[in-house]
Amino acid sequence: MFEFKIKKVDKDTKARIGKITTNHGQITTPCFIPVATLGAVKTLSKEELETLGAGIILGNAYHLYLRPGIKIIKKFGGLHKFINWSKPILTDSGGFQVFSLAKLRRITEEGVEFSSHIDGSKHFFTPEKSIQIQNDLGADIIMALDECAPYPCSYKYAQAALERTHHWAERCKRYHRNKNQALFGIIQGSVYKDLREKSSRFITALDFPGIAIGGVSVGEPRQKMYKVIDWCEPLIPKEKPRYLMGVGEPVDLIESIERGMDMFDCALPTRLARNGAVYTRKGRINLRNSRFKSDKDPIEKGCSCYTCRYYSRAYLRHLINEKEILGIRLTTIHNLYFIFNLINNIKKAIYRGEFLQFKKRFLRSFKK
Amino acid sequence: MFEFKIKKVDKDTKARIGKITTNHGQITTPCFIPVATLGAVKTLSKEELETLGAGIILGNAYHLYLRPGIKIIKKFGGLHKFINWSKPILTDSGGFQVFSLAKLRRITEEGVEFSSHIDGSKHFFTPEKSIQIQNDLGADIIMALDECAPYPCSYKYAQAALERTHHWAERCKRYHRNKNQALFGIIQGSVYKDLREKSSRFITALDFPGIAIGGVSVGEPRQKMYKVIDWCEPLIPKEKPRYLMGVGEPVDLIESIERGMDMFDCALPTRLARNGAVYTRKGRINLRNSRFKSDKDPIEKGCSCYTCRYYSRAYLRHLINEKEILGIRLTTIHNLYFIFNLINNIKKAIYRGEFLQFKKRFLRSFKK
Repeated sequence: MFEFKIKKVDKDTKARIGKITTNHGQITTPCFIPVATLGAVKTLSKEELETLGAGIILGNAYHLYLRPGIKIIKKFGGLHKFINWSKPILTDSGGFQVFSLAKLRRITEEGVEFSSHIDGSKHFFTPEKSIQIQNDLGADIIMALDECAPYPCSYKYAQAALERTHHWAERCKRYHRNKNQALFGIIQGSVYKDLREKSSRFITALDFPGIAIGGVSVGEPRQKMYKVIDWCEPLIPKEKPRYLMGVGEPVDLIESIERGMDMFDCALPTRLARNGAVYTRKGRINLRNSRFKSDKDPIEKGCSCYTCRYYSRAYLRHLINEKEILGIRLTTIHNLYFIFNLINNIKKAIYRGEFLQFKKRFLRSFKK
Repeated sequence: MFEFKIKKVDKDTKARIGKITTNHGQITTPCFIPVATLGAVKTLSKEELETLGAGIILGNAYHLYLRPGIKIIKKFGGLHKFINWSKPILTDSGGFQVFSLAKLRRITEEGVEFSSHIDGSKHFFTPEKSIQIQNDLGADIIMALDECAPYPCSYKYAQAALERTHHWAERCKRYHRNKNQALFGIIQGSVYKDLREKSSRFITALDFPGIAIGGVSVGEPRQKMYKVIDWCEPLIPKEKPRYLMGVGEPVDLIESIERGMDMFDCALPTRLARNGAVYTRKGRINLRNSRFKSDKDPIEKGCSCYTCRYYSRAYLRHLINEKEILGIRLTTIHNLYFIFNLINNIKKAIYRGEFLQFKKRFLRSFKK
């Protein structure tokens, strides 16, 4: 099953609170989806994710198809059982990875041929194959195969990629039969207004249970991304959840929620953490910096995350510098806590009708 | 404070159960001490260690002196506070590391000059300096600086190293004044019976609160190590805890406990785990093996560790192969659980007067 209900809309903006219901439980939106590319959110256990408040995680069809392979996961009865995660899962179609990671791509109307970034082996993804893989993985939300155009990208290329994305969306919808999985369509069109509008209308007309905006956060300036959202949003029915793919920077989350977006995923908070970069209310700091070497304070005073309750910047800096795995576990926990906490505070602000005040206060202290 | 009390001696062998009391709590012996070289047991949180039953962990003076540096840890009030571990800690003197890791050593009666294995910087360790470092680290149990002879090693070299080790032991004892830290002496002498006996008598005569046997598990055959223990043990007073350094293979633990040893440390169980090698009652298996690729069983059926309760060999294999950190966390948990569980079962067997039956049963199934 899949259901989306809007619980509250902000009085000043398009920000809203919603509830998604799936066979594996409910998710309150806006929601941030931690990335579990290969079936694990890097460094974390499921108990840690649950304590942090993760309601849904994201697996990747491209990666899981290459390893361990769909056959193995299918034998276990799907991804939930293979990785032992009982809450909702979303799988990406693999489209983005084919276009960003894989080598020697040959794209035709039929599908895309590519070489594995692991061993160079050749593979062919069609919309039908991507859906079949995602059916076998058994996630609660699955994504249509799309062509994610790079940035910058000529109008002509963006247009051709868009045509293919639309045809593929139709084929995905036609092929997908499993009622337990909600198939989301993806709007493309690069940074071109008419293409984004055309795509919004086309994808929306296919009546997917959820609509994603893809092809953002691929290197374009922040303001361009906000414009893309502003072009698409009015054309997406209010009653559908809107998923802004690949976005997870604190400022972008606030700006996109204000613009009516409901769902987000991003590898950045966890990737930054592994590099020693952690969020604070004043912006990002890097624990490798020598000024922290004797610092007894936690990453952020007043932060209630596990890491800040027990550990100093000096100890974290030592662990990160020495490549001790405990260090990147602790920074990952902090960064995800920061993002979940931000989303929770945004929700509270929407409920209280104080979204804009919250935004102003947050942006005043947070350095981009 | 430091106190050791023997609670029970096996009726057939020298195996015994004891209790060590320190300012940071009690430890029941026999005990296995997980290695936290740089102030963290690789991959694990303190809660995980506590759940596993770790009563004491081992820090390393050489490593912590090089990074983050003793000055920083001293500022925090010692290692316990720096790493936020409130149970007992033992620190090694750094001797073993200077002789196994550091480069360009120059050993004199005064001490040992060495180049850091990190940046080549020059340092000079004397017995007094090692004790000062360990005083600053503030562990509950600290070790005398010794010269750990390699294997194989000529009689002549072993003898010279032994003389230095003895002189250094005297100097360590003379320099050490902190009543809150128990300084253990270390018996050396390579695989030579008269040297081991001489060393046992000399170190014992200095009346340290605990006695260690060092210079074993350095590449010599198993049976030679057991012989070394058999030579030394009768010369060590019964009422002192005996610490067999660097030993932690299941079979060696049983054989050494039978020979009257009380304390053990070893990086092997955690190092193996990071390589995908895990213990079972039948011996060691490596999860990288392709025969586990669809295996739905846990590492060991009936094992109550966190990993075996929730995860399949196939999922663990996938994580380990993909270098997902969660994988080596889970295998580390299993291997430490295996060792702690073995020690617990040995203790139960000693209490019941069934040590030899237990040993026989264990060795019948466990392949070395």
